[in-house]
Parts: sequence; C-alpha cells; structure tokens
Amino acid sequence: MRDTPQTWFDKSLEILTYNRNQMVWSILVTIFGDLARRPGDQISGALLSRLTDPMGIKPEAMRVALHRLRNDGWITSERQGRTSRYSLTPHGLTESDAASPRIYAESSAAPDASWHLLIGEPASAAQRGEADKLWRGRGYIVVGPGTYLGRGAPPSESANFLVMSAPPAHVPNWLRNKIGTPDLAAAYRALEDALDRALPLLQNAPHMTPIEAAILRVVIVHNWRRALLAHPDLPEMVFPENWRGTACRKKVMEALAILPRPSPEMLEKAVNTA
Amino acid sequence: MRDTPQTWFDKSLEILTYNRNQMVWSILVTIFGDLARRPGDQISGALLSRLTDPMGIKPEAMRVALHRLRNDGWITSERQGRTSRYSLTPHGLTESDAASPRIYAESSAAPDASWHLLIGEPASAAQRGEADKLWRGRGYIVVGPGTYLGRGAPPSESANFLVMSAPPAHVPNWLRNKIGTPDLAAAYRALEDALDRALPLLQNAPHMTPIEAAILRVVIVHNWRRALLAHPDLPEMVFPENWRGTACRKKVMEALAILPRPSPEMLEKAVNTA
Repeated sequence: MRDTPQTWFDKSLEILTYNRNQMVWSILVTIFGDLARRPGDQISGALLSRLTDPMGIKPEAMRVALHRLRNDGWITSERQGRTSRYSLTPHGLTESDAASPRIYAESSAAPDASWHLLIGEPASAAQRGEADKLWRGRGYIVVGPGTYLGRGAPPSESANFLVMSAPPAHVPNWLRNKIGTPDLAAAYRALEDALDRALPLLQNAPHMTPIEAAILRVVIVHNWRRALLAHPDLPEMVFPENWRGTACRKKVMEALAILPRPSPEMLEKAVNTA
Repeated sequence: MRDTPQTWFDKSLEILTYNRNQMVWSILVTIFGDLARRPGDQISGALLSRLTDPMGIKPEAMRVALHRLRNDGWITSERQGRTSRYSLTPHGLTESDAASPRIYAESSAAPDASWHLLIGEPASAAQRGEADKLWRGRGYIVVGPGTYLGRGAPPSESANFLVMSAPPAHVPNWLRNKIGTPDLAAAYRALEDALDRALPLLQNAPHMTPIEAAILRVVIVHNWRRALLAHPDLPEMVFPENWRGTACRKKVMEALAILPRPSPEMLEKAVNTA
C-alpha cells in the first residue's frame, strides 16, 4: 500500500514494534480496548487485517487469535454478507473498562494515598502459597509469605490478620526490587527508549490518516498496557530507584495526544475507500 | 519464732507462696531489687536468712544462690567480723533500676502509644531465628519470622526493613495468644487469686513488723515480676480476652501500699533485737 519505504509512519512503526514476542490475541485485546470500547462498537475483519498486517501479523495467526478470544467470551462476531463484524462481549467490555482508567490516566498513583498491611498467622508453605495468590490477584503486594501490602482501607475480612493502617514509612530496596522486577524495569526502559525515538517523528508527521493513527496508538498502548498491568497500581515510592514507569506514562500520553483516537466508523470508511 | 500458728501473717504467706518452683537466686534478685536498690544499701547474711527462712528456703540453697549471684556480677559481699554484708554491684543496681519502673508503675502501658512494624527481607530459617532473637531481646513482638512489632518510633537501623509507623488497627486472636501465652495467662490468674485471698488478711492485720512487711512484699513482687518480665511492656489491646495483667497490677499496688517498704537499716535493727 505504501510503496515509498521509510516514511515517518514506517519508521515510527518499526521503532514501536521492537517487541516481537507478543501474542496476537493480546494485541487484539488492545485493539478492541483502545478503538472499540463503547457498547455497540464493531470492527470488521477487513479493518482488523488492515490494522494488524503492517505489524507483521499473518492472517492465519489472526484467525486463531479471534477464535481463542471468542471461546474465552471476550469478543463476539456477526456475519454480514461476506464480512464478519467483531465486538467486545459484555464481559470483554467490563474488563476493558476496568483497565482503562489505569492505562489512560494522565498521572500515576498518588503518593499520599492510604495504605494498609495485613499479616496472617504463620502457616505452612502450601497454605501460604494459595493465600498469597489470592491476595496478589486482589492487587496486593506480597511482601513475604502471608504478608500483604495494599492501598486504601483494610478489607472487611481482616479479622484473622494483624492490620496496620498507614502508608509505608520506609520501603527497603529488596521490596522495591521485588515490586519493580528487573524484567519490568527493562520493559519500561525499552518503551521509553522507543518513544524517545518515535515522538519527534510523530510530532513532525506531515499528514496522518486515521488508519495510521490507529495502528501507532495500538502498538504504543499495547506495550504500555503489558508493562503496566504486570504490577499493581502503586505510587513511585515503592519502585526501585531510576524506575521509568512515571516517565513512560508522560511520554505515552504525549504520543496518544498526537495520535487522536479515530472512531470505528472513520476507520471502516478508510478501509472501504482505500 | 512464731509459736502461734496461722496468724494473719502465716495465712498470708501460705497463700502468697503458692508457687513452689521458684529459683532461690531469682528470689534474692527480688529481695535486693525491692529492699536494697539505693546505692550503698546492704543486707546482712542474718537478715537474708530471717527473710527467706519463712518462705521455706534452706540455708544451703541460699548459700549456693548467693555464690551464683556473686559469680554473675550481680551482688558483692563484704565481711564484717562474723557476718557478711551483701549489696548490689553497679551492674546489679543498673539492671534493677531498669526493671523497677515497669514493676512499680501504677498503670500498664498506655493504649495510645505510638507503634511501628518492621518487616525484613525473606531469609532462611536459620538467619531469621537469629534476627528474631535479637529483636525479641529489644522488647519487640516477633509477629512471624522477620516481622517485628514494637512501640515508639522506628529505630535508626531500619533501612533494610519495610517500616509501618502506626498503632495496630486490629490485633487478631492468634497474635494475642502468642503474646499472652496460656502459661502467662495462668500465672496472672494464680497471682490474682492469691491476692484476692490475701488482701483482706493484709487489710485487717492487727499489727505488722517491718520483717513481716518485707517478707510479704518480696513474695508478692517476686510473683509479679516473674510474670511481668516474661512479656514485653504492651497495652491491653494486644493481649487475649480476659487477660488479668492489668487487674493484677491494681491488686499488687494495693497490697504494696498496705506493706510499706522498710529500709535495710530498720530491718537489720529488727533482726538484731529479735
């Protein structure tokens, strides 16, 4: 479609698709979550291909991923003549809505939020492992076996815990490195580096089609979402020194402001007239 | 010395020496700590015998205990003609002084005191065992391995700990029972029961010699001190329900007010004129 190689768009896309190990179904979750999160929003198979093809996703891989997301109850499809139209299920809409405030917030978790710590009765490693998993799933930091640090007010079911209601007075390095693991720190550094290189290209783009904006939004939001949702929503004070999470958010928001979100209707029209 | 059995004093002493498993050296620590804690105070061997004989302590057991306390650097002795005079060493004075505010305070630890919790990096059981012992020695509650609850402000050496500075918002039963163990709860119940029976006898004592007051003080303070110093100084909120520590303190102080502390000089005089 673009015969002149290395336009601003090609360069930006190449920079922003630095991570080639991504699951196609997960990229589709980002596409629907970013571009079709209003009830009633639909994306045609043709549009999906138009968005994912420049990312290097093969049609067969996309078919498998669509099948998986349909089986998982995340998306549903509707045939109209020769084309299929896909949309988030109520479940997919709810989950996407739940994640979006964190993904699109202009600033990270406030440092002055209230906190609480729960300490359970010493128990066997097996019992603790199960409990640790449960509380981690609720967004808690597992400080050590049976010890959970969370934001806000303590939950009602805390009768069996020693409960301390206060923000941490000091967060030691070993805990910071447990919360912001080296892998996670590297993911943010890689995203920041890509944005540092792509932002000047986006800022100086001579012209931008809705499809181009949509593709670049998706690859940015996807990398951002994957790093962000790998850890609980926590203020900077609990992360290691030189943590780039907050810097990344600022640059992601800067990029998204240059890449306004097109409506599914605009995108379908662009596909049909191409 | 008392030929008429079961005077008010005999009955009181019988009631208050309910615990027959006590170490003689430990009783001597109580005697010096209660009756001869001012620098320069001395107690003669004759007075020690006069105080311990009614408690059922044999002369040979007392000699062994005196030897031990001298070896431990707790007491020192001085020969004057045929009698030895014993006194606390500077070390014994310092230790006795350090314990006395807690022993003689009119009220238990205040519930609104400040608290802090320290959580160390997960470590091996052996490393944790050593650290747990160290912090327990500093008056901390070992909530679990590597997790220490203490009163007041956090110590300066807490860089390697997650620090929460707040009073516990909730203390679960498993922790209350760990702090106030069943043995400790039973020790307080036994002391309270003895005081409930002895107090009316003390209140109605027709006449009281300095020696009688000294002996009864010692047996009361000894049982009290042994229970009290077996756990850190903590407010009632961390102890199990029906904890009798605070009730015991009230009754101990009530008894001690009826048994004014005689000076060593008064006691020596009483021994010499007996």
